[in-house]
Amino acid sequence: MITANNRTADHPIEDIFLKRWSPRAFTGEAISEAELRTMFEAARWAPSSFNAQPWRFLYARRDNAHWDKFLGLLNPFNQSWAKTASALVFIVSEETMEIQGKGHVPSYSHSFDAGAAWGYLALQAAFMGWHAHGMGGIEYDKIYTTLNIPKGMRVEAGVAIGKQGPKTLLPESLQAGETPSPRRPVQEIAIEGGF
Amino acid sequence: MITANNRTADHPIEDIFLKRWSPRAFTGEAISEAELRTMFEAARWAPSSFNAQPWRFLYARRDNAHWDKFLGLLNPFNQSWAKTASALVFIVSEETMEIQGKGHVPSYSHSFDAGAAWGYLALQAAFMGWHAHGMGGIEYDKIYTTLNIPKGMRVEAGVAIGKQGPKTLLPESLQAGETPSPRRPVQEIAIEGGF
Repeated sequence: MITANNRTADHPIEDIFLKRWSPRAFTGEAISEAELRTMFEAARWAPSSFNAQPWRFLYARRDNAHWDKFLGLLNPFNQSWAKTASALVFIVSEETMEIQGKGHVPSYSHSFDAGAAWGYLALQAAFMGWHAHGMGGIEYDKIYTTLNIPKGMRVEAGVAIGKQGPKTLLPESLQAGETPSPRRPVQEIAIEGGF
Repeated sequence: MITANNRTADHPIEDIFLKRWSPRAFTGEAISEAELRTMFEAARWAPSSFNAQPWRFLYARRDNAHWDKFLGLLNPFNQSWAKTASALVFIVSEETMEIQGKGHVPSYSHSFDAGAAWGYLALQAAFMGWHAHGMGGIEYDKIYTTLNIPKGMRVEAGVAIGKQGPKTLLPESLQAGETPSPRRPVQEIAIEGGF
C-alpha cells in the first residue's frame, strides 16, 4: 500500500505524488538560483501541443531586488503566509503558437499545457525536499502591468516555493488548515466509455 | 549529467522527466484496467485551485466495447497511428467550482489544473514503462455529443496510451518523426523580475 502524508493511494503509484502537497508554513530560508532552475528544468520537459512550450515563469527570490514587488502582487491572504516563502513565481502562457507554414495561430491548449509544466515544477520541487504551493489569489490586473506581460499572454497562477517548517510559523488562524488535502476517488474522475 | 532519450538536462532533475516522451509506434498490446487506474490515480493527486479537482478522464481500452467509438473521435492523422494504442482517453474539465458559502462559481484555472493532472498521468505511465501521447487533433464537436459531455465542461485533449515498439510499426511517412523532441533552454522560459 502506498502511503505518505496521511494519504493512501488506491493504486500503486510512485509515492512522490502523495508526498507533493501545498503547505503554507515556510521557513523563510534562502533558495539558490541553481535549485530554482532545476525546478524550471523539470517544467521545461513537459509535453505541449505542437511542442509549442507556451509556459513562461517570472520569478523573484527572497531578499532579492524583485521580492517586495512580487509579494505585493499576491492578495492579502496569500501575502500573510507566502511572505516566508523562498521564491515567488508567476506562471504565464502564450495564447498563440507558431506552426510551420501557418504562422501564429490561436492555441487551444496553452493553459492546459502550462498546467502540465506547473505540475512538473511542483513534483521536482518535492523530489528536492522543497514545496511549491500554487495560488489563484493573486492581483491579475496589477501583474499584467507591473511585470510588463506582453499582449497575447495569460497570467495563469502564482506559486510560492519554500521549505516546510512547523505549523507554528503560521498565523494562528491558518494552523488548523495546515494538512495535506484528500481527493475524490478514482472512480469519480475516470469513466469508461463516456458520461 | 542527466541524460535519457538523447536528451540532456541542463540542471539535475529526476530522469523520469526526460524519459517521458510521446512516441507513436505502439505495439497494440492490451492494457489492464488496473494499470490504467494507476495512471488516473497519479492524476488524482494533482494540485488544483480550492482543491476543486476539475479533471475527468473518459476512456476506452483496446478491444473493448467503446474502442471503435473513441478511435473515431480522433482526426484522421491521429487515427493512422493511435489505432495501435492500448487505451484512448479524453480529458475534460469542469468550468465551474463549488466554494463553501458561494455556490458554483466560474473557475479561472480549470484547464490549467487539468493540465497538471494530465502531466502526472503521463509521468506515472512513464514510470510504469508505458507512454501517454497527448493529442490536440481530435473531433471536439463530435466528442461533446457522442460522449454526452455535460454543459459546463470543456474537452481539453485526447491521449493515446501504449507500449512503445519499433518505428517500423508506423506508416512510413511517420517513421522519420519518431524521436523525442527538444526544448527551449531554461533561460528562455524562466525570467527573473518580469518581462
